[in-house]
Amino acid sequence: MTAQEYISAAPTQARPAGVVISVDAMGGDRGPAAVMAGVAIAAKKHPGIGFIVHGSELDLKRLVERYRLQGRVEIRPTTGVVTMDDKPSQVMRNGAGTSMWSAIEAVRAGEATVAVSCGNTGALMALSMIRLRKLPGVNRPAIACFWPSRNPAGFNVMLDVGADVKADAPDLVQYALMGASYARNGLGLTRPRVGLLNVGTEENKGRAELKLAHEMIAQATEAGSFDYVGFVEGSDLPSDRVDVIVTDGFTGNIALKTGEGTAKLIGDFMRQEFSAGIFSRLAAAFSVRALNRLKKRMDPRRVNGGVFLGLNGTVVKSHGSSDGTGVAAALGLAVQLAQSGFRDRLAARVAASLQGMAETVQDVTAGGAHS
Amino acid sequence: MTAQEYISAAPTQARPAGVVISVDAMGGDRGPAAVMAGVAIAAKKHPGIGFIVHGSELDLKRLVERYRLQGRVEIRPTTGVVTMDDKPSQVMRNGAGTSMWSAIEAVRAGEATVAVSCGNTGALMALSMIRLRKLPGVNRPAIACFWPSRNPAGFNVMLDVGADVKADAPDLVQYALMGASYARNGLGLTRPRVGLLNVGTEENKGRAELKLAHEMIAQATEAGSFDYVGFVEGSDLPSDRVDVIVTDGFTGNIALKTGEGTAKLIGDFMRQEFSAGIFSRLAAAFSVRALNRLKKRMDPRRVNGGVFLGLNGTVVKSHGSSDGTGVAAALGLAVQLAQSGFRDRLAARVAASLQGMAETVQDVTAGGAHS
Repeated sequence: MTAQEYISAAPTQARPAGVVISVDAMGGDRGPAAVMAGVAIAAKKHPGIGFIVHGSELDLKRLVERYRLQGRVEIRPTTGVVTMDDKPSQVMRNGAGTSMWSAIEAVRAGEATVAVSCGNTGALMALSMIRLRKLPGVNRPAIACFWPSRNPAGFNVMLDVGADVKADAPDLVQYALMGASYARNGLGLTRPRVGLLNVGTEENKGRAELKLAHEMIAQATEAGSFDYVGFVEGSDLPSDRVDVIVTDGFTGNIALKTGEGTAKLIGDFMRQEFSAGIFSRLAAAFSVRALNRLKKRMDPRRVNGGVFLGLNGTVVKSHGSSDGTGVAAALGLAVQLAQSGFRDRLAARVAASLQGMAETVQDVTAGGAHS
Repeated sequence: MTAQEYISAAPTQARPAGVVISVDAMGGDRGPAAVMAGVAIAAKKHPGIGFIVHGSELDLKRLVERYRLQGRVEIRPTTGVVTMDDKPSQVMRNGAGTSMWSAIEAVRAGEATVAVSCGNTGALMALSMIRLRKLPGVNRPAIACFWPSRNPAGFNVMLDVGADVKADAPDLVQYALMGASYARNGLGLTRPRVGLLNVGTEENKGRAELKLAHEMIAQATEAGSFDYVGFVEGSDLPSDRVDVIVTDGFTGNIALKTGEGTAKLIGDFMRQEFSAGIFSRLAAAFSVRALNRLKKRMDPRRVNGGVFLGLNGTVVKSHGSSDGTGVAAALGLAVQLAQSGFRDRLAARVAASLQGMAETVQDVTAGGAHS
C-alpha cells in the first residue's frame, strides 16, 4: 500500500472509539491550559469522540488529570513549538517535531479525521499543504470562515479569508464549489446560495477576473448543487441574500478583519456610553439581559474556526487568542465536519466538477474571443 | 485666456459673497426636497456662504421660498437628471444639461469652489474627470471617506473607496500624499500618520505592488509632510495607530461597505434584543440616553461625504439615501474644504512631490533589480 493509497483509505477505517480529533495543544497565545480547557468542554459535549493532543508531555499529563480526561485523550509528546512570529518558509524546513506538525501528521496517517490548531495561520497552511497535499484538481486551497448574518442559519460562509493573496477565475469557481460543500456540511443547507464579492452588483462592474468568474460560476451550479445569486457587495456580507461569499484571500482577509474591528469598536463605544455617569450605569444594570444576549450573538468565539478547504484532510484554525470556550467551538466544528464525512464529500464534489469546469473554461474563453 | 488658464486662475477670483458651493439638487433617492432641507440647515450654520443649486426650476423655487433662502441661493434651471441606474459611459456622452453636469460646470467655470451631489457615484466621477480633468501628474483620482475611529479626531481617512478598481504602486503613493493633505484640511491634523492596508503587518506580506508602494511611501514622507506607520490590517481601520489608510478602490470599497454592513447588523440585533419582552423594553427606556449617544457616534450621516481627490476642483459625493441632516453634513464638509483653500494646497503638494516621486520610483526599481 503506497502512502497515497493509505491516506485515501484511512477515513473509511472503522474506529472503535468513533471520530478522533487531532489537537495542537501548544499553538495559540494562551498555551496548553486554554487548549485543554477547550478539550474538556468538547469531550463532555461529544461523548463518543476521541482526542489526540500534541505537545509538552509534562504539561499535558497534568492537564489531562486535572480535567479527568483519561481514556478520552491520547497524548503525543512533542518538544518543538511553532511561534506566532515564525515564518512559514522556516517552519516548512524545520517544523518536523513541532506539535503543529505532529497534529497534521495524525490526520495524514489516518489516525484522526480533523486537525485543530490555534497557532500561526501561515505556518499551519504551509505545513498542511506539504504534508496533506492539495486535492487533485485544486490549484489554491482556501480558508473559509463563518460570518454573522440575518440568515435563518445565523451565519454565512466566506472564503478565501487569507490562504492566498491571489485568485484567478478558475480558483474562484473552485472556492464556490468548496464553499457550497462546506455550507452543506457546516450549516446544514441543502442548496446554498453563492455570491461573488464585488464593488457593485451590475454585470459590468469590477476586475476582469471577476467578470470571467461570474460567467463560470453561473455554469457550475448543477455540478456544485448550489444557486448562484451573482455579484454581492460588502454590505451584503451579513445579508439574507446569500449563504456563501466567494472572494480572493486578500479581499476576504481585509473584509473579515474590518468586520471584526468594526464590531469591536461598537462594543467599546457601548461600554463607554453605558458607564458614563450614574444614570447610564443604572440603565446598564437594567439592560444586562439584553446586552448579554447581544454580546452572545456577536461573540467571535461562537463562530471560532477557519477551515482549510482543498486539501487531503480537514484542518481547523482556531483564533490565536482563543480561551477554553473559543477552542471548544473550533473543536465542535471539527467534530461536526468529521461526523458528516466532509472531506470525502468535498473531494467527490471537486472531482465531479473538474471535467465540467474544464469544459466551461473552454466555452467561456472561446465565447469571449467572439463576443 | 485659454480654458486651461481660466480654470487655473478661477479659484483666486475674489467673490463678494465669500465661498460658494454648487449643489446638484436632483441627485439622490429622496429628490430635491431632501437636498434643499440640507441646504437650509447648512445656510443657517454657515452665514457667509452662498449656494448655486441646479435642478427643476419649479421645484427649487418652491423649496427656496419654503425655507426662506432668497438671497442665499441662486437657482440654475436644468431639465435632465442622472438616475442611479445610468451607466457612467452613457452619462459622459449624453450628460450635458443634467443637474449633475451643471453642478460640476459651476466649479469648472470658477463660480463655485466645491460641487456636492447625492447622485450616481460612477457618473459623478466620470463627469468630474471629463469636465474638471485630473491634476497634472495624477494618474488615478481617488474617493476619500471618513471612518469612525479611536483617534482623538474621532475619524480616520480612507482612500480609495471606489474611484478605480485598480491601483499600482505609484498610484498608492499619490493616494498617501492626497490623503495626508485631506487629513490636514479635513481633520486639522498637522502631520497625519499614513498606513498601507494589507493582510498582515510584516514586510514580506501581501501583493507585489504593495511591497513596492511600502518602500516608495516611506521615501515620500518629507515631500508629503506625513509620518508613515507601515502596513496596517483591516482590524486597524478604527484604530488609534493611523490617520490615513491607503488602499486600492476595490479593497477600499469592500472594506467601507463591510464596515457599514456590520454596524447596521449590530444595530438591528440591538433593536431586536431591546424589544424582546416587557423587561427589555423597560431596560431600553432606561437606556435611551446611552443608546442615543451611541447611535449618534455611529451615525453614518455625521461622516457623510466622499471627497474626489486628484482633480482640478473639489467634488463631494453625499450618500444617495441622505436626508436633510446627511446632506447638511456633506455641505459642511464642502464649506470646510473650500474655506481652507484645499484644492490649491493639494495641487501644490502633488506638484512638489512629483519630481521626488519620479526619482524614488527609479531608485526603488533599480535597487530591486540588484537585491
